[in-house]
Amino acid sequence: MLSQTADYALRAVVALGSGQCGPMTTQQIAAQTRVPAGYLSKVLQALARAGLVEGQRGSGGGFVLARPVLGITVLDVINAVDPLQRIERCPLGRPDHEHRMCALHRRLDLGIAVMEQVYGQTTIDELLDDSDPVRSLCEVAGDPGRGVDRH
Amino acid sequence: MLSQTADYALRAVVALGSGQCGPMTTQQIAAQTRVPAGYLSKVLQALARAGLVEGQRGSGGGFVLARPVLGITVLDVINAVDPLQRIERCPLGRPDHEHRMCALHRRLDLGIAVMEQVYGQTTIDELLDDSDPVRSLCEVAGDPGRGVDRH
Repeated sequence: MLSQTADYALRAVVALGSGQCGPMTTQQIAAQTRVPAGYLSKVLQALARAGLVEGQRGSGGGFVLARPVLGITVLDVINAVDPLQRIERCPLGRPDHEHRMCALHRRLDLGIAVMEQVYGQTTIDELLDDSDPVRSLCEVAGDPGRGVDRH
Repeated sequence: MLSQTADYALRAVVALGSGQCGPMTTQQIAAQTRVPAGYLSKVLQALARAGLVEGQRGSGGGFVLARPVLGITVLDVINAVDPLQRIERCPLGRPDHEHRMCALHRRLDLGIAVMEQVYGQTTIDELLDDSDPVRSLCEVAGDPGRGVDRH
């Protein structure tokens, strides 16, 4: 249901939200999120345009979140790169459905609306709960593939 | 969010559920749903494979629903042509997320789950409520574009 671009963007934001060592380079984020670096670079640009991440130049530079993780929702990230498409107009273009869609398209839109609500109520902070035995994007300590270490 | 194929399939099933004049040809369904006939033909084949519609050959033949509209949900139709993709395994393939995904992917899946619930609880019958002033796929009486007439 969700595009790969949206999933990649969320991985990147979670990785940046997990990092406590300052800016992360595209390569560091790519290694941690397992997203191809070229693709990730475009995703990070879109996130920067949406005001969710900031690039910092120079030695020790890289990307950081532009806002606290408490202030960024899953929906913010999805909408920055590949917005959820609500059904707001009759897809058949019927003139008398212009102001009120038929039951079919109202119900289809309701399904998207409830999904939107779940994502709009979830902050990135909630995805970084250290007490969860399975931490977002992390593997268990000692695993050579481990990327994030918040401790 | 939903694919065009899923929307087209739902239009076709609603059209067949609305029809009270026996089988409908692909051309008749195409005219009513405003779906290109070639595309519609493939959608109808998929719906037939899923046991939702039946083709009847010969003079006066065409497509009919294979089950009563009370027994077909929106989710049945979507899953017949372009199934909702739940997130059931870690998209990063992390071995220790195999049995329990991280919070990010659990929450993304929850959004899809609530959408699935809305569609799974909606029967095609509910979309054909004659008391609704905006009837599915219909235009107002007298409009030359009108296709469905259940009266």
